[in-house]
Amino acid sequence: MAERNFVSTTPPAVGIAEVLRRRLPTGRVVTDPDIVAGLSHDQAVWAPVGRAVAVVRAKSTDEVRTVVRACLEQGVPLVARGAGTGLSGGANAVEGGVILALDGMDRVLEVDQLERLAVVQPGVVNDDLRAHVAALGLWYPPDPASSPWSTMGGNVATNAGGVCCVKYGVTRDYVLGLEVVTGTGEVVRLGRRTSKGVAGYDLVGLMVGAEGTLGVVTEITVRLRRLPPVGVTAVGYFDSVGQAGDAVRATAAAGLRPAALELVDRHCLRAVDAWKNMGLSAEADVVLLARFDDDGRAAEEGARRMVDCFRGAGSTWADRSETEEEAKMLFAARRLAFPALERLGPVLTEDVCVPIGAVAEMLARIDRTAERHRITIANIAHVGDGNLHPLLVTERGDAAAQVRARAAFDDIIADALELGGTVTGEHGVGLLKRPGLTRELGPAVLEMHRAVKRALDPAGILNPGKVFGQA
Amino acid sequence: MAERNFVSTTPPAVGIAEVLRRRLPTGRVVTDPDIVAGLSHDQAVWAPVGRAVAVVRAKSTDEVRTVVRACLEQGVPLVARGAGTGLSGGANAVEGGVILALDGMDRVLEVDQLERLAVVQPGVVNDDLRAHVAALGLWYPPDPASSPWSTMGGNVATNAGGVCCVKYGVTRDYVLGLEVVTGTGEVVRLGRRTSKGVAGYDLVGLMVGAEGTLGVVTEITVRLRRLPPVGVTAVGYFDSVGQAGDAVRATAAAGLRPAALELVDRHCLRAVDAWKNMGLSAEADVVLLARFDDDGRAAEEGARRMVDCFRGAGSTWADRSETEEEAKMLFAARRLAFPALERLGPVLTEDVCVPIGAVAEMLARIDRTAERHRITIANIAHVGDGNLHPLLVTERGDAAAQVRARAAFDDIIADALELGGTVTGEHGVGLLKRPGLTRELGPAVLEMHRAVKRALDPAGILNPGKVFGQA
Repeated sequence: MAERNFVSTTPPAVGIAEVLRRRLPTGRVVTDPDIVAGLSHDQAVWAPVGRAVAVVRAKSTDEVRTVVRACLEQGVPLVARGAGTGLSGGANAVEGGVILALDGMDRVLEVDQLERLAVVQPGVVNDDLRAHVAALGLWYPPDPASSPWSTMGGNVATNAGGVCCVKYGVTRDYVLGLEVVTGTGEVVRLGRRTSKGVAGYDLVGLMVGAEGTLGVVTEITVRLRRLPPVGVTAVGYFDSVGQAGDAVRATAAAGLRPAALELVDRHCLRAVDAWKNMGLSAEADVVLLARFDDDGRAAEEGARRMVDCFRGAGSTWADRSETEEEAKMLFAARRLAFPALERLGPVLTEDVCVPIGAVAEMLARIDRTAERHRITIANIAHVGDGNLHPLLVTERGDAAAQVRARAAFDDIIADALELGGTVTGEHGVGLLKRPGLTRELGPAVLEMHRAVKRALDPAGILNPGKVFGQA
Repeated sequence: MAERNFVSTTPPAVGIAEVLRRRLPTGRVVTDPDIVAGLSHDQAVWAPVGRAVAVVRAKSTDEVRTVVRACLEQGVPLVARGAGTGLSGGANAVEGGVILALDGMDRVLEVDQLERLAVVQPGVVNDDLRAHVAALGLWYPPDPASSPWSTMGGNVATNAGGVCCVKYGVTRDYVLGLEVVTGTGEVVRLGRRTSKGVAGYDLVGLMVGAEGTLGVVTEITVRLRRLPPVGVTAVGYFDSVGQAGDAVRATAAAGLRPAALELVDRHCLRAVDAWKNMGLSAEADVVLLARFDDDGRAAEEGARRMVDCFRGAGSTWADRSETEEEAKMLFAARRLAFPALERLGPVLTEDVCVPIGAVAEMLARIDRTAERHRITIANIAHVGDGNLHPLLVTERGDAAAQVRARAAFDDIIADALELGGTVTGEHGVGLLKRPGLTRELGPAVLEMHRAVKRALDPAGILNPGKVFGQA
């Protein structure tokens, strides 16, 4: 794994740990420094990590409430975490704080086929929920790349996106209700189980994406959909990211509505080939992958029109995939891109989102940024909704390259904002995007954030310092 | 129109009105008592109305900011309004306050075909936006019954729903960004223009449905969709609301996904026939109307399966409509139900939402409530998402019947909550649903609402007393 800023190995203070041990069942409170350190960070390289005092492995809402109340009494910061697959430092420990590990609250509490909803604990892994409801012909759409490991609590905290969001929306679009332990230590139920409802403020939507700064989520009620058909895949090979960006624009202009539209560039293809020898990089510089999952013949029609768009935009080759195996292989290559690149060194994952019309220009600017700072920037992208993930790869231990990568990271954020985009499409602000957020929102909107934070977490104990600075 | 609680005709104080006259262009500030009274309420019968001091007809964001700042200086409450078609008293004047009429800010500022979004001022009428974008093959889905008159600002304030929401979602699902004059008199831009984004708290979602209590919306950026096909309509006639409720349950269990599923009962059919002589009430006691707008043959297949569900649930007659004219006639009858009933006397419109599995039971309880309180309760419903609109009809001037109607209104709310529903599906809380909201949310969640309100409207001038009581 990547370098991290662990600063000390001195034993932590034990005040809050002792208080928690007295109030919680045996085994819940862990202070072993190695375990605490291992659970003190997510997967964001270079994000600072504080020294936590203890980890609590909570098993119930009552235990979570006990932890929140103890932290309130003692004025100790609290960081909730799931699987730690975040990419922005949002779950990184705060100095002197407690880590509240929720991965042990991992039960699917209910699936209601008629109302098409599921109720889960925050530690349920995304793919486990999918598998559970698929057996009933139902589907939970949001599919972050981390879905085999990431938890629903973490998905809610970051408002996670994924591949199918271009058609089906993101986590917030599926969360109907939440049980939350508030910043004042109360257990509340927010939202509803009905398909519509306007009773009061949208506190559910506010909690989703708040990265644990406004409450600790202890139960999640999500909408489900009918499991869609497997679908039809269209593939296009291009000689440059610029051409691929033009093709994406053409598909949007044509009104196509794929269930996925992904981009994988030559750096990723080469890294995947170097690892798995799939032979992709010999055929294309950039691959666009689209899937249509409409009913009946509409999917084939969509794929056919997508292939036309690809060809019209100058693809070197484009067709619908012959077999489902071929389609699976191509999507597998897309999923393997990130771990394949990680084999080459620490990968700093960017996550900007720009308007569709600006995709080609943004990709071109990313290429120029890579040249200017003399680093490798690979690109995978949920390109159908303009959500780009430039991957900044440096060699392990090359401090100078890391400095250049950070400068490139800043330039990418500046370009995304200049093109009318946002500094984070789906990974969240955490620590890495705090400066970008400040630029994007401006002082008045930032002050609204601080006011909401003070309102719902008056003691400031919930994941303080994340998303935006302290009030 | 209906009885209202106007209490006085004495001339209002002029302090704030004079301040506003000095700061705004000529003609913006109106203090004529008749005009002020006419703009001091929405369409909710029996909701209390305060005496406003003045109406301001704002023409720009700058003017709105001027009004908010003047009200802040003077400590005067401010109620923003659009067309006044609300049904919960949300836009009713507050005693001694200013009415900020935004219907004059009625320009469509931008339609971006590629990004599929529109930017509008709050006074744009819903149907005008639809017509504007339809010319480009695009569609703004949320379609409240008030769409020919209601404004986008009002739709945002109430998070308006409508007929097609069962498939396409409600207003909040389409609002990407807002310009807002805050409770501290600043002009801010919230949200984004990209299809995804997680930069900070979902303040856009928080503003939508907040009924003007957290800010004054001066510009709205909405997502658009491709204009769908006209679609295919399925119709079912039933002998009782119970059978119709069972049919709705069966369609949900079958996994059908219509673009509309509406219920119209015998009271409505009779009232429409008495007015327009459409001959519907002779054929059916209850009508279910479903529309499928999928591409290609999927719509016909959906309608066919829907007819099977209707027949399986005991319809006296069910079929797909032969012609588009026939389908239009049936949906017209549904739209005419409310004005047809209003011809009989003041109509108190309920708006509860229950789980699909509870629709039949809820409709049966509504019938028993009507009997118990000896009043007429007609039913129209967006029944596909469990959103029922019992219409409590009383004779004009029958004070005793009004008392009974209010008791029935309370009973309906209690039943909806008992069946796992919500006190308002799409009309908002305003004044009429305040007691219901208190029951639904409970004290801890209500306190969270108050804390958010204090955070974003520290002076408490924005539509005070609506949604929930003062802190």
